[in-house]
Amino acid sequence: MAEEVKLLKTWSSPFALRVDWALKLKGVEYDSIEEDLSNKSPLLLQSNPVYKKIPVLIHNGKSIPESLVIVEYVDETWKLHPLLPEDPYERARARFLAKFSEEKVLPSAWILFIKRGKEQEEAIVEAHGNLKFLEEELEGKKFFGGEKIGLVDLALGCLSNFAFLLEEIIGVKIVDQEKFPLLSAWMTEFTEVPIIKESLPPRDKLLARFRERLEPHLAAAPPK
Amino acid sequence: MAEEVKLLKTWSSPFALRVDWALKLKGVEYDSIEEDLSNKSPLLLQSNPVYKKIPVLIHNGKSIPESLVIVEYVDETWKLHPLLPEDPYERARARFLAKFSEEKVLPSAWILFIKRGKEQEEAIVEAHGNLKFLEEELEGKKFFGGEKIGLVDLALGCLSNFAFLLEEIIGVKIVDQEKFPLLSAWMTEFTEVPIIKESLPPRDKLLARFRERLEPHLAAAPPK
Repeated sequence: MAEEVKLLKTWSSPFALRVDWALKLKGVEYDSIEEDLSNKSPLLLQSNPVYKKIPVLIHNGKSIPESLVIVEYVDETWKLHPLLPEDPYERARARFLAKFSEEKVLPSAWILFIKRGKEQEEAIVEAHGNLKFLEEELEGKKFFGGEKIGLVDLALGCLSNFAFLLEEIIGVKIVDQEKFPLLSAWMTEFTEVPIIKESLPPRDKLLARFRERLEPHLAAAPPK
Repeated sequence: MAEEVKLLKTWSSPFALRVDWALKLKGVEYDSIEEDLSNKSPLLLQSNPVYKKIPVLIHNGKSIPESLVIVEYVDETWKLHPLLPEDPYERARARFLAKFSEEKVLPSAWILFIKRGKEQEEAIVEAHGNLKFLEEELEGKKFFGGEKIGLVDLALGCLSNFAFLLEEIIGVKIVDQEKFPLLSAWMTEFTEVPIIKESLPPRDKLLARFRERLEPHLAAAPPK
């Protein structure tokens, strides 16, 4: 049977990007279906009735929502370029760090866009604490997955976009090279891998989209 | 080498209970170490430096935090009584439902303890929506894992405690038998499995602990 693989996404979603990357690393051919989140398609509503969110992977008619669940599904379905290590402890460690990236690291970077003054300073302290933990994790490694890109790299990969947007929009350099030399080197290595690089949204287009989305917040608390 | 398995927990934690159950279903011998969360042990702080929370599993000196990550680790390490199905789509479905239980179902039941009046009515509507989704999932099944207890059953198992506590403390019967016959039957089946039943905290002790924890909220908004 010919495989039918569809990915419901938006071009600017950092979470859909994880799945794009996973599928490309595996060499899977798929159709990207761009969703308009202000007018969700019947296919999206039907394939993710609980959350009604992208990304959703539809493989031979079966739908899987939630980016990290999808990445594990992709890893178990297509064997090329394993994204999780074999050892159970290393697998648990990767799942823990992916969860930490999802629940702590990315939200603590995201929140910087809308905080100002003392609140922003506190938020930077928290974001730095999270990044410090990741910095230690990279000791002696090229990627979080070791020599090859793995689950944690994909979970955290969009940090490169956040870092760029934060610097452009509010003038905060979150992944400072002096403070986080390993994380900073990882970001460069990761985004220079051709498969990763070619999927990243164009920076000027992303910047315009974020400025538009953040407009109500920026108007309420203009950047310094 | 003799296995050394320790579980840092509290007797009343619904999240630690998932790991207790997983280890018992697998027939793993382990030491339970009761933590005092108002005075966390150096072992807890050192083995879960990011979250500083229980449960943490320590297996031959290696520590794994986060209950659902631990349950998958336990499943991959000890083969008796598999907790996840073999098929990648079914595995993804189980992971999705476990995440849904963690992020939506249990918080939407928990919040009922501290809401009153119109807010409580709205919260009940949301909790019912989540339970309805689970009810449909149980169609034709004894457990979420099919004939045997699996990841989703463990993720959601403490709902039986929440349901009991909600009824006792605020007089709301959340898993109504008429509205949710399958979920209601599942709750009974699940808690009657000897390994599950014997790990459940004593109901009177749990009730006393919850009344104590909820006291500030109950004083602010006395139950009807």
